[in-house]
Amino acid sequence: MRLPFDARMAATLEHLKPPVVSFHFGLPPEPLLARVKSTGARIIGNATTLEEARWLEERGVDAIVAQSFEAGGHSGRFLGSSPAEALGLFALVPLVADSVSLPVIAAGAIGDERGIAAALTLGASAVQLGTAYLHTPEARISDVHRERLFTVPTLFTNLMTGGLARGLRGRLIDELGPVRGEVPPYPLASEALAPLRAAAEKQHEYGFGPMWAGQSAPLGRPLPAADLTRTLAAGTLAILRREA
Amino acid sequence: MRLPFDARMAATLEHLKPPVVSFHFGLPPEPLLARVKSTGARIIGNATTLEEARWLEERGVDAIVAQSFEAGGHSGRFLGSSPAEALGLFALVPLVADSVSLPVIAAGAIGDERGIAAALTLGASAVQLGTAYLHTPEARISDVHRERLFTVPTLFTNLMTGGLARGLRGRLIDELGPVRGEVPPYPLASEALAPLRAAAEKQHEYGFGPMWAGQSAPLGRPLPAADLTRTLAAGTLAILRREA
Repeated sequence: MRLPFDARMAATLEHLKPPVVSFHFGLPPEPLLARVKSTGARIIGNATTLEEARWLEERGVDAIVAQSFEAGGHSGRFLGSSPAEALGLFALVPLVADSVSLPVIAAGAIGDERGIAAALTLGASAVQLGTAYLHTPEARISDVHRERLFTVPTLFTNLMTGGLARGLRGRLIDELGPVRGEVPPYPLASEALAPLRAAAEKQHEYGFGPMWAGQSAPLGRPLPAADLTRTLAAGTLAILRREA
Repeated sequence: MRLPFDARMAATLEHLKPPVVSFHFGLPPEPLLARVKSTGARIIGNATTLEEARWLEERGVDAIVAQSFEAGGHSGRFLGSSPAEALGLFALVPLVADSVSLPVIAAGAIGDERGIAAALTLGASAVQLGTAYLHTPEARISDVHRERLFTVPTLFTNLMTGGLARGLRGRLIDELGPVRGEVPPYPLASEALAPLRAAAEKQHEYGFGPMWAGQSAPLGRPLPAADLTRTLAAGTLAILRREA
């Protein structure tokens, strides 16, 4: 089960000394954060609103991921803003870039080189692509999940983990509706669902587990990961040069 | 009250012969659409999904507005897709541009020259900005609406007209929640609300009427409309050249 960042995890970081540590749901309490900082790691925080971006800047992160409404997987929203007010990447990136003095890493709905070039144009210093790599042969997802990236719309659901996260529609969402009040809080719902999911997947029914995906999933290409990275980089540079 | 496009309106277009006619909620029935086409007007349709874009292309429109989730005012959604699956501009523009052979006009969350350049980079042939012009002195909105463009989040509500539309939070939304099932269907709710709204506005309370705004409202500048247009055009060209 997923657990909050704790002293044991801090000790692991002190041992491994990774160059970058990225937090998704806010930041650990100050004494733990201080331990991470003192390893020399660059620290990245995740913001879904201007308030979260400013909160992270005040606590001394080195860069901010601006995670938009379109992003696949869990929204990192941590300061209590309403999901009904969630911002698209087109609004979020320039608003965050104007509000903080840190590098902004755009995340959510960037599916190809056009998206990378557009995010940089909006004020991002870098981009983060997740769903694009679900199309790669290296991604360990079911064939059903992989095929549906091209054909099935995404939406936010809390059924899978208790937290709001964007994924493809599937059987459980169709049966219950995507968001229900009685779902156990994050991350407990995934434990509660595990036996049902395991039984369903034995019958090749994958709609009782998460099939995370962002809104630009259909833009993806099934290249090996390294080739995809090189293709995206070359394509982005070509776009930025062509616009001259 | 707002009424569907009818024979009387078609006759008006035959008389006035405007160069462009843009429809927001789908298209009129074929005999009426044929009359509009025969005036020689270029016809623009509004799509919030790929299905809507293809539907419009099949019916012979000349260009497609790709209206995103972030856009202020009414969503033009007309083929019954779920609001929970609404697409952000970052996903919508390239997906529509790849799916139809018509020019795509990006609409929703474009607040400044960075947004215009980014939308063109994503595959749009043109852009449509609405909220940016609410900041101009020409816009006939209340001072409360104008001030809150910089400070208040937006969300979808059906309280104002019966149709889902994005606007600033205000008193009625705070009292009732933004979306309620018992609201009369579009456009009847605005008639039902009119007396309450009029009484409230006499007391300078503007939260019983719509304060439409898109998500990039805080990016706006209070320039006169013509100056704003020239500033945006010059700024966009400067960005596209700088990226060389």
